[in-house]
Amino acid sequence: MDSPYSKAMNRFFAAKSNIKDNTIIITDKEDIYHIKKVLRLQADDRIIVSDQIQYEYVCRIKEMGPELLLEILEQNEFLREPHIRVTLFQGIPKQQKMEFVVQKCTELGLDTLVPVFMERTVVKDKGDYWKKVVRYQQIAEEAAKQSQRGVMPEVRQATTFMDMVERLSGFQLVLFPYEEEEETTIKEVLQGIEEGIKRIAIIIGPEGGFSKEEAEMIIGQGGIPLSLGKTILRTETAGMAALAMTMYELEL
Amino acid sequence: MDSPYSKAMNRFFAAKSNIKDNTIIITDKEDIYHIKKVLRLQADDRIIVSDQIQYEYVCRIKEMGPELLLEILEQNEFLREPHIRVTLFQGIPKQQKMEFVVQKCTELGLDTLVPVFMERTVVKDKGDYWKKVVRYQQIAEEAAKQSQRGVMPEVRQATTFMDMVERLSGFQLVLFPYEEEEETTIKEVLQGIEEGIKRIAIIIGPEGGFSKEEAEMIIGQGGIPLSLGKTILRTETAGMAALAMTMYELEL
Repeated sequence: MDSPYSKAMNRFFAAKSNIKDNTIIITDKEDIYHIKKVLRLQADDRIIVSDQIQYEYVCRIKEMGPELLLEILEQNEFLREPHIRVTLFQGIPKQQKMEFVVQKCTELGLDTLVPVFMERTVVKDKGDYWKKVVRYQQIAEEAAKQSQRGVMPEVRQATTFMDMVERLSGFQLVLFPYEEEEETTIKEVLQGIEEGIKRIAIIIGPEGGFSKEEAEMIIGQGGIPLSLGKTILRTETAGMAALAMTMYELEL
Repeated sequence: MDSPYSKAMNRFFAAKSNIKDNTIIITDKEDIYHIKKVLRLQADDRIIVSDQIQYEYVCRIKEMGPELLLEILEQNEFLREPHIRVTLFQGIPKQQKMEFVVQKCTELGLDTLVPVFMERTVVKDKGDYWKKVVRYQQIAEEAAKQSQRGVMPEVRQATTFMDMVERLSGFQLVLFPYEEEEETTIKEVLQGIEEGIKRIAIIIGPEGGFSKEEAEMIIGQGGIPLSLGKTILRTETAGMAALAMTMYELEL
């Protein structure tokens, strides 16, 4: 092997506090189970561990006790993390569509996903939705490992439309794909922004789209209504397409 | 209603030969069943019919016999068709992933999908694959109607890698997302092409990617190896992302 990197090498995430000097401790029980029982790795095997902030480490398994002790062989800045940090506010869709959104947007470099109960959201079990969020976070973790990302996107607790609106001021750019907007395209918006913009929000409606009141509130908080192109995209496709286009313009 | 167009209006495709003067005849049994039994439309209701070439027609149902007779109220050039025509050669993936590719790429404006048996394709039932293609064509039709497209993408019979290579000369641009290519990005390629390019191919490998021999053959036939960005995309995500980026650059 020319480099200690290998595509087949398995990836894990560790808290910064578990990384010291030349050593990393893996304390997460799920990770330990996966390494021992599923991957059947042994002392001396290699894995990659990300600190989720800046670095990823090629490691050698040193000791396999109840916790795993790793020796750091090589430290690298993230290879596969975008500079921009994109948060997707996704109107909660029906069925398994959110799982798909989580997985695909993780591959495409998403930073944070916030499920939002909007006026036209059909899902009723608001109280139970946190269970789904736990599942979505697992999907994000798996997808982040498979895509060799340095950061595992965070799936936040589902929230209300009004809460989302209040949080929009924390972003430097709010992209608002809106089916009533047929003039301004996402390309015009992205090509018109200042240099150095890092924190971007994308807001996607559920199957029925946005109500007029919702659209007005988003625009009132600085959301830029725009079109993603001529064709009509389903809710689970729109965020992914907007994210791919944003990465294309700002990261390539 | 200001315009005879309505988002709720159902869409169908008709052969040019069934469109004459002010009248369209719907002869397709599936369509007739759907209109009568599923949608429960009646005489005087409106639907939209596309000729799949250039025009779509807002129609009034005139007679509901064994065939349907429609009166044309309005004729429009396609609103939602890209100018470029993109063919996706998709290395056949596992499980239901191709269904996903068909649906999402139809939404994003794909023209033609060709499933290709590549070296690392795992699927074994080559003989039976035509049954799947029939199913994929149905998915394309449904997705095209829902996206209000003027053209229903064509899903061709699955073919061999060598046959695909021979067909590449029919395209003005062959985009070849290849994981070994880490310098040239799809953006550099798309921004460097001449004006007026219309027929574009995108080639995506199956789960295991391309073999070195396959990559060399594609490049030998003019395929441009390129990167879609820093993150690693799954096979079913890569075509969609490449298509979204291509539409962004050339259609917006």
